Amino acid sequence: MAKQERAIRTRRAIVEAAGAVFDEHGYTSTTIAMVLERAQVTKGALYFHFASKEALAQAVLNEQVPFGAVPPQPCKLQEIVDMTFVVARRLLDNALLRGSVRLAVDQETPSGVDHGEPFRQWAQALTELLELAGERGELLPTVKPAETVDLLVGTFTGVQLMSRALTDRADLGDRLSVMWAHILPSIAVPGLLPGLDARADRGTRVLASLEQRVAS
Amino acid sequence: MAKQERAIRTRRAIVEAAGAVFDEHGYTSTTIAMVLERAQVTKGALYFHFASKEALAQAVLNEQVPFGAVPPQPCKLQEIVDMTFVVARRLLDNALLRGSVRLAVDQETPSGVDHGEPFRQWAQALTELLELAGERGELLPTVKPAETVDLLVGTFTGVQLMSRALTDRADLGDRLSVMWAHILPSIAVPGLLPGLDARADRGTRVLASLEQRVAS
Repeated sequence: MAKQERAIRTRRAIVEAAGAVFDEHGYTSTTIAMVLERAQVTKGALYFHFASKEALAQAVLNEQVPFGAVPPQPCKLQEIVDMTFVVARRLLDNALLRGSVRLAVDQETPSGVDHGEPFRQWAQALTELLELAGERGELLPTVKPAETVDLLVGTFTGVQLMSRALTDRADLGDRLSVMWAHILPSIAVPGLLPGLDARADRGTRVLASLEQRVAS
Repeated sequence: MAKQERAIRTRRAIVEAAGAVFDEHGYTSTTIAMVLERAQVTKGALYFHFASKEALAQAVLNEQVPFGAVPPQPCKLQEIVDMTFVVARRLLDNALLRGSVRLAVDQETPSGVDHGEPFRQWAQALTELLELAGERGELLPTVKPAETVDLLVGTFTGVQLMSRALTDRADLGDRLSVMWAHILPSIAVPGLLPGLDARADRGTRVLASLEQRVAS
């Protein structure tokens, strides 16, 4: 293994361990020592990549958007719907994603860490997709992509939070279905609505097709 | 002042102080001593009302719904819209409300404290209003009040959280306008939409009319 590749793997192991520890303990109670033990790396390796706990937290915060990767769809609105369901599904078993969401949401994250960053990153990724949807004639003429995207990111944040507080996210798929049923008619041209799939198990099905693509 | 009235005032002073301290420091870093100093009450007075930090946090969590008090409106959907704008406005300057929202939202709130309780209390209060709106013919026949209300509570939670993370809640009124513009068409009968007021400054205007009512 080349030196550079080893460094990338070590960095990833540290970020994943940090995500898991932040998820379990929150920012304040997390120590570098806890991350070292979880990642099974030396102090020197960790400080080579991250100068401080703040830097570690920032790295974890910056890892959210890749979890929204989904297969391309002919309908770009369906792709946006798919991203929400896939992230919801991954929140159930991915500790790095959960830790990243906790850092973004918890008020305890200190001001030295930019916890607005994932909100901006999601908004940017979704705005590009929504503008593409607009170019393809999928959107009502009243839609302002930046406003709608901000609402989608905020709504997703709150819906997953309420689902976590009440059912440890067990009902998140159902809640996302309800969310899209209320919001899609204000975004999509009416002819598109019957063909859009926002059923509660959409995330599981999209992930299965994603794994098939990787395997083949 | 009667003994009972004094006890009620003392309890209120403690809850307000606790809300402010939880807002600033979060659950873990808050100590009973900090609350005592803020409330200017004796240890004995505090423990007479609250057996533990958990009990204090629970009391703060249970105080959210009264902040949604708004004047009655002929249109019950307008009343629901008004509640969201008034709570948003009060989040800017009420430390007890802010502390209560922080405890509900932050994952650090321990499992011994039921931080799902405010979500359930909001859902109950709003479901009653939305059912009344339905009886008066304000709702589309497709609306299931319990589902719609859960979405509204989740959406409000996320929209205020994103507004806090990005602008310290300075743009919360604008974000609520966008929220209602996207959701009302899926809830209200079309004839009602032009008459509903969900402009960004709605909270300020409703609070002013509320103060006039109290003064007169």
